[in-house]
Amino acid sequence: MTKILFNRVAFIGMGLIGSSIARVIRRDNLANTIIACARTDKTLESVVRLNLADETTKDIASAALDADLVMICTPLSTYSSIAQALGPVLKAGSIVSDVGSVKVSAINAIKPHLPEGVHFVPGHPIAGTENSGPDAGFESLFEDRWLLLTPPEGTDRKAIDQICRLWEAAGSKVNCIDPEHHDQVLAITSHLPHLIAFTIVGTATDLEDDIKSEVIKYSASGFRDFTRIAASDPVMWRDIFISNREAVLEMLGRLSEDLASLQRAIRVGDGDKLESLFRRTREIRRGVVEAGQHIPPNPGKN
Amino acid sequence: MTKILFNRVAFIGMGLIGSSIARVIRRDNLANTIIACARTDKTLESVVRLNLADETTKDIASAALDADLVMICTPLSTYSSIAQALGPVLKAGSIVSDVGSVKVSAINAIKPHLPEGVHFVPGHPIAGTENSGPDAGFESLFEDRWLLLTPPEGTDRKAIDQICRLWEAAGSKVNCIDPEHHDQVLAITSHLPHLIAFTIVGTATDLEDDIKSEVIKYSASGFRDFTRIAASDPVMWRDIFISNREAVLEMLGRLSEDLASLQRAIRVGDGDKLESLFRRTREIRRGVVEAGQHIPPNPGKN
Repeated sequence: MTKILFNRVAFIGMGLIGSSIARVIRRDNLANTIIACARTDKTLESVVRLNLADETTKDIASAALDADLVMICTPLSTYSSIAQALGPVLKAGSIVSDVGSVKVSAINAIKPHLPEGVHFVPGHPIAGTENSGPDAGFESLFEDRWLLLTPPEGTDRKAIDQICRLWEAAGSKVNCIDPEHHDQVLAITSHLPHLIAFTIVGTATDLEDDIKSEVIKYSASGFRDFTRIAASDPVMWRDIFISNREAVLEMLGRLSEDLASLQRAIRVGDGDKLESLFRRTREIRRGVVEAGQHIPPNPGKN
Repeated sequence: MTKILFNRVAFIGMGLIGSSIARVIRRDNLANTIIACARTDKTLESVVRLNLADETTKDIASAALDADLVMICTPLSTYSSIAQALGPVLKAGSIVSDVGSVKVSAINAIKPHLPEGVHFVPGHPIAGTENSGPDAGFESLFEDRWLLLTPPEGTDRKAIDQICRLWEAAGSKVNCIDPEHHDQVLAITSHLPHLIAFTIVGTATDLEDDIKSEVIKYSASGFRDFTRIAASDPVMWRDIFISNREAVLEMLGRLSEDLASLQRAIRVGDGDKLESLFRRTREIRRGVVEAGQHIPPNPGKN
């Protein structure tokens, strides 16, 4: 049913996200040829075993050669060197896109290296799980999830449309958004929750041994959800915090103030203050449920 | 199959937890008569509609009259006055139990009011959802979840066994634990995660309006899980924080130190420090998965 969108698609990085997009392209026959580029033999072997690509390589430049779409799906800290390797080989009229969680730094790292005539359409799927690698991907990962595009002003409309159609085939709802604004919103919806989850699980690992074993044993309710979040990819998250430093520190500053105020309420036994906050936060959940954002992705669907 | 465990069981409070236990008692025919006591007509009407009790009342003393088991399933701040009302009417040989999330304060609030010859077996099911009220309960809520008992020294062995059998019928794994130790462990596994979730969702509600609407819209990944936790019952949680003040403040102090240290790592761009923490926290998740504590309860099972 769906038309072929691209002749050759090159994936730089084939982890959870890259491999999930490749699965969608395979399922819907959206490209004639998929080229997978990864750093390790292990990843490329998995890609071959899962039949996610027609060609595999460790060399970025040869992956991108003659590609109509180069999709960068690696941690943010690799963007600059990847873009440097891509620059000389990209063909005129081709599209470069990415899936990074921080957009201002992504644009700053990639854009300067792209030649004239290459279209740059940065993107970010608001979807994921705590698992990594090509085996963790699944084709329904993006269904009913937002895909935010942050194309620089003046980006070719047709290139944006093509990327939209790719993500719509994956089941995403696509919006364009200003990159600075994207980074602020994501700082509070995603980066700060992850930072806190990493911290609290870290705090638990430093507990005395007798408590620690019981923390794991009795982790249901609360802590369990935090351990899931805190199991997310270490390198990807290291890069996110450093790339979105300003917005994350700003939001963390606000959180710390609020936490100090709650700490005081607990210390002095100010039940009214606690209850009134908890009533407010319950309302926010209703907003999330009404916005249809409350259902986590289900790998079991595949 | 299961034998009747009690002639008359009185529930003081019929919310998520109380109504879920009542459903198990109904399903397995563990009591001849269930008496439900609640504060509001609305709750009692739901209890009748759901057929969760044979008798309903708003009066604590008449609910407990002639009961073999009185199960207290209300917020912690009500314990003392409930125990005062129970004291004069409890019959010799009867059992009083509860499901409160903080055990030292629960024991201090209830025990002094119980007459000689009444057996007190405090309990805490490590199970729950963010929903409240009798309609939110379901009979599989406690399946494969821990139930911690903190009976005072010298408690009648037979009374403890009877409470064990009730919870085992509900599918729980039962352990006895020291109440102080319970409160410390739960401070980190449950109370602190909830406090943080309430705080971060509160911080988000205070954001400028243009960001706030997008925070809800794009809440998938991270924030969504926090909003679920932060939708938990406001009164119950107010009482938990105030009842477990010392342990919560101690754990919060440790968390704040760790958070400050991460904040600094982000500010100075210390990627190694971030990555090494994130690798450690991923390990903890493996422990949780191995302990079988990673699967949330599923109301859809009923």
